[in-house]
Amino acid sequence: MTRRIHVIGIGAGDPDYVTAQAVAALNDTQVFFVMDKGDAKDELVALRRLICDRFIREPGYRFVTLTDPPRDRVAPDSPTYRKVVADWHAARARVWASAIESELGPDGVGGFLAWGDPSLYDSTLRILEAVAREVDFSYDVIPGVTAIQALTARHRIPLNDVGEPVLITTGRQLRERGLSGSAVVMLDADCAFRHCPPDTRIWWGAYLGTPDEMLVAGTVADVGDQIAQMRTAARERHGWIMDTYLLRPADRT
Amino acid sequence: MTRRIHVIGIGAGDPDYVTAQAVAALNDTQVFFVMDKGDAKDELVALRRLICDRFIREPGYRFVTLTDPPRDRVAPDSPTYRKVVADWHAARARVWASAIESELGPDGVGGFLAWGDPSLYDSTLRILEAVAREVDFSYDVIPGVTAIQALTARHRIPLNDVGEPVLITTGRQLRERGLSGSAVVMLDADCAFRHCPPDTRIWWGAYLGTPDEMLVAGTVADVGDQIAQMRTAARERHGWIMDTYLLRPADRT
Ligand SMILES: C[S@@+](CC[C@H](N)C(=O)[O-])C[C@H]1O[C@@H](n2cnc3c(N)ncnc32)[C@H](O)[C@@H]1O
Ligand SMILES: C[S@@+](CC[C@H](N)C(=O)[O-])C[C@H]1O[C@@H](n2cnc3c(N)ncnc32)[C@H](O)[C@@H]1O
Repeated sequence: MTRRIHVIGIGAGDPDYVTAQAVAALNDTQVFFVMDKGDAKDELVALRRLICDRFIREPGYRFVTLTDPPRDRVAPDSPTYRKVVADWHAARARVWASAIESELGPDGVGGFLAWGDPSLYDSTLRILEAVAREVDFSYDVIPGVTAIQALTARHRIPLNDVGEPVLITTGRQLRERGLSGSAVVMLDADCAFRHCPPDTRIWWGAYLGTPDEMLVAGTVADVGDQIAQMRTAARERHGWIMDTYLLRPADRT
Repeated sequence: MTRRIHVIGIGAGDPDYVTAQAVAALNDTQVFFVMDKGDAKDELVALRRLICDRFIREPGYRFVTLTDPPRDRVAPDSPTYRKVVADWHAARARVWASAIESELGPDGVGGFLAWGDPSLYDSTLRILEAVAREVDFSYDVIPGVTAIQALTARHRIPLNDVGEPVLITTGRQLRERGLSGSAVVMLDADCAFRHCPPDTRIWWGAYLGTPDEMLVAGTVADVGDQIAQMRTAARERHGWIMDTYLLRPADRT
């Protein structure tokens, strides 16, 4: 008899991105653990609840909020930075471990809902690995449709050129390393594409798969400013934004 | 009144990777167009039929096979190579266009089932774009769970290190360009990981999400030969193999 945990990818936007496997795992779960992200992203928490409402047949489940332990703010170049971060990760793992122990019976089933796919720029699996050192449970991972798939589907484009690689990267990495070859950029708070050559092609999408979806495609020269303006306006309207884009260097042929 | 086409990502292995959106599109489709791949991959065609059987409520649909036009074999370095390939692509687009015109009524609905996600190393969208220049129809794309998500879910690992990029690439590209940073390798017929430094970490998976699934993880030095042997034996047994792996250079910290 051992506690089980499902880490469930719910897709990145449209509730209909949920897979049959995720629906089965949702229906198997008694307690959903939710990380407290502050209220800026209330809509995202609401979407998670909507998915549960919609796909769970017998509503015997409940939500438990995990509150992050307080965090010392230390500059990344400080000599104590690594230790402070490691301590905080350990403290967070203890919070999760004690929630799992107190909220789940010895053969209880818990769940974590991961936006998109659990493996992509998401900390759940990393934390859970640490938690598994503190408390006894088994877990499995249910894959989901990522924001990358949502982006290419909504633009109806291939991700890669024939036989060519694609880099998945962040706004910060793009700024630091520049563009070489096709790249999908996530986690970009600052329109890093503006540092790319003007003839770079961009396929941009925000709130993909939701009623607020925005799509723009063109060259950075032609649509870069427009994207930056739409992004600022949308972020003010919603209080938050999720956007992703594919870049391809101009055709050299 | 116009013909409609769904390009439907069906997930890369487990029929339960199918999304709610894909199920709706499957049920909306009257004619599924299937590319003839020869009989080596009969099992893959069977899996597509199984998905239709399982998720389509009213079995009024049918399958139509598209046979590729004959192809002149010309070496890639021949002066006529580009023209021969372009001609063949055009001929194939004409085959698809005439099938769409003859098999679908003026308001009919067709579908293409794409393994995994339609945007990832798949030619359907590229061909369909050419076909849309020959015949009038509208189309949409339904995203799916890729082999990359299947790989990381089954190994229960993050795809990326925190804030770091990941390259999606092919066996051939890996051989030609070497490894720098994390990379997922697809379409590798030849265990290209063997050219990586021995302390490179590898998470390998074959037939992911199916009853024949195989998973191996370790360093290239420790498990590389084992993977190569398992791969050869499995390919002989099945007549074909699908495998993917994540590589991470050894930790330099
Ligand atoms: C913390 S990461 C999580 C990614 C997620 N695990 C996935 O599989 O897509 C969040 C980033 O994903 C992208 N993203 C997620 N959902 C999105 C959506 N619906 N539209 C646009 N971008 C999205 C944005 O780049 C955002 O900064
Ligand atoms: C032509 S590509 C198509 C990829 C597909 N569109 C996707 O989204 O995963 C085929 C390659 O995908 C990988 N692949 C697809 N399904 C797989 C599976 N179930 N197990 C392992 N690898 C798989 C293999 O690397 C294979 O060579």
